[in-house]
Amino acid sequence: MLYNFNINKKANSFLVIDVDAIVSNYQTLRSKLTNAHCAATLKANAYGLGVKKIAPALDKAGCPTFFVATLDEAVELRKILNNNRKSILVLNGFLTGTGPICKQYNITPVLNNFCQLEKWVDFNATLEFQQKAALHLDSGMNRLGLDNNDIGRLIKNPHILNKANIYLLLSHLACSDEPESTMNKRQLLEFHSLIRRLPRVMASLANSGGIYLGEKFHFDLVRPGLALYGSVPGHLQSNLTNCISLYGRVLQIREVDKGELIGYGGTYELTKKSRIATIGVGYADGYQRSLSGLSTVFHHSSPLPVVGRISMDSITVDISSLPENELKEGNFVELIGKNFTIDQAASLAQTVPYEMITGLGRRHYRYYNQTKDGL
Amino acid sequence: MLYNFNINKKANSFLVIDVDAIVSNYQTLRSKLTNAHCAATLKANAYGLGVKKIAPALDKAGCPTFFVATLDEAVELRKILNNNRKSILVLNGFLTGTGPICKQYNITPVLNNFCQLEKWVDFNATLEFQQKAALHLDSGMNRLGLDNNDIGRLIKNPHILNKANIYLLLSHLACSDEPESTMNKRQLLEFHSLIRRLPRVMASLANSGGIYLGEKFHFDLVRPGLALYGSVPGHLQSNLTNCISLYGRVLQIREVDKGELIGYGGTYELTKKSRIATIGVGYADGYQRSLSGLSTVFHHSSPLPVVGRISMDSITVDISSLPENELKEGNFVELIGKNFTIDQAASLAQTVPYEMITGLGRRHYRYYNQTKDGL
Repeated sequence: MLYNFNINKKANSFLVIDVDAIVSNYQTLRSKLTNAHCAATLKANAYGLGVKKIAPALDKAGCPTFFVATLDEAVELRKILNNNRKSILVLNGFLTGTGPICKQYNITPVLNNFCQLEKWVDFNATLEFQQKAALHLDSGMNRLGLDNNDIGRLIKNPHILNKANIYLLLSHLACSDEPESTMNKRQLLEFHSLIRRLPRVMASLANSGGIYLGEKFHFDLVRPGLALYGSVPGHLQSNLTNCISLYGRVLQIREVDKGELIGYGGTYELTKKSRIATIGVGYADGYQRSLSGLSTVFHHSSPLPVVGRISMDSITVDISSLPENELKEGNFVELIGKNFTIDQAASLAQTVPYEMITGLGRRHYRYYNQTKDGL
Repeated sequence: MLYNFNINKKANSFLVIDVDAIVSNYQTLRSKLTNAHCAATLKANAYGLGVKKIAPALDKAGCPTFFVATLDEAVELRKILNNNRKSILVLNGFLTGTGPICKQYNITPVLNNFCQLEKWVDFNATLEFQQKAALHLDSGMNRLGLDNNDIGRLIKNPHILNKANIYLLLSHLACSDEPESTMNKRQLLEFHSLIRRLPRVMASLANSGGIYLGEKFHFDLVRPGLALYGSVPGHLQSNLTNCISLYGRVLQIREVDKGELIGYGGTYELTKKSRIATIGVGYADGYQRSLSGLSTVFHHSSPLPVVGRISMDSITVDISSLPENELKEGNFVELIGKNFTIDQAASLAQTVPYEMITGLGRRHYRYYNQTKDGL
């Protein structure tokens, strides 16, 4: 193990985040683009991994634009960047009465419907210097964004568009993790059809998966989120690097007799005398309970099956396959990492890597690997 | 709705925690005990609900003892209580080298195996005034605690026990949420058999479910966790009050045509023209993705089905059953509360209420209902 986990004697777990790898993934993604710029989506505290460390690294690497979900996240990010040069966009829209905050922190709302657009125009009219905004067009996901009717209404009221200072039109793909889905092409055509009806400004459609759907999906700006951390669901040959590892401390090792039951519900019965290690990470740390009896932890390259139910603060692992005294109390095992990736964990837990990552960010001690300056 | 959610224009969601109800639940639980004391288990930041608000209220209500999972949580709790009178116990054990921290903050480790016991004795020998400890005996869960062999070894080395200053013997039930399980009685007998072999000190076996298994399970100290928040899995007639509500903001309302697909993966197809509301809460807020297409939100008492997949930062809800303009953008709907409880959510998500609660505690604005002083 490369890390000195003894720096904190109190730690039950360490979450290791490779910031260098995130920057490298950003550069790999950017290298796939011919004309488009590459933004970064850092919502939910950079998917729980720590926007304070990740945003400055991407900023230095030249990332021009950041997307977040909420205005709170945007304000936090502006303070972290500590300058006004880069664009910060709020995907969840423009909430009533929040104009002055957008102004103060130079934050760009993504206007999601006609009503928000009108409110934005009203607010902008009160300013000496107009703030820019993005406009979300719904191309078929039916979650957020203006629909065809709204756009018709907008075209009939060109003064609204003129006064809104829209610099970017964006839409979001529902099925970019299914490259074969006809939905992708349908949304692409719909987005073209929508933006053609409006004055030409920058356009953006692709999230992580969208980047791998090919250049037609890139437009002027792509906005990867999960891909920065090495994962692009549905696109296995992504050439990106995993940047998340989770290590848990062995709290106890015990010899348990054949026939004994392990953990809550007594769901796992030992078929032979076994050595069982209890690790100080549980579902309150984001190691999802649905991984019970399914996942594997690693001691170096040796796989060790998780047995019995996952508890709130611990898991139990069968370490009988290891030589005695190879693993000791106080040592750390790998729960997530190159041997068992976020993607594998998410797949076993029957969810998406996004949920697995955003759930991880609590109670762990953190290491941020960062050697390069990203310039 | 009782709350003034307009106090923060930036909020996408509010998590309302009824501290009065938590105190009332604590009192209800205590009233079920004849001789035993009632502790409170506040690990994982009081299951994510906020130990800073909950611990002082329970302290005032007379709670004598608090259990947490890790030493970090214990140190935080000691600072919150701001006095040294109450006992704070660390369930995940005594980690090498952490003796001085236990001493400094008067924290009581729960010794989980023979090795920890020896280390504790060594540490205590360095002190002028001995610190007390608890000893965890495994009664059949095979997760943490001394087994029969350890106890045999201990009895042969009585000087270790003498020097460890053990004031409490505890064990943990694997199946207290299954009142009919034979495991409960087996663990009860085993715990009796284990404590009989050791000098008489206080004993503790019951978690939330254990309290409802009857007085035989109470011993000298019970330690409810989840029951404080109104839930006792497997014991429906608990007479406790739900204390958690979650409200999400309507970001957008749209009319969507028959045949359109909603959300990621286009998994939900509208069978008729519908009004769809997008709410600013998603799985990054702990509203688990496995609730996709299963859960219901409420506008007052009107149920509104969640349709399509749950996103990271939002969900989509069919509000066609409401009169037009009854629900507006900017309003809040109830995601968790008396109409759709944590228990119901957990059941639909195929997990336990514990995981649902511990996952909730992020990004929401919080209201703590607290009118009584708990005295």
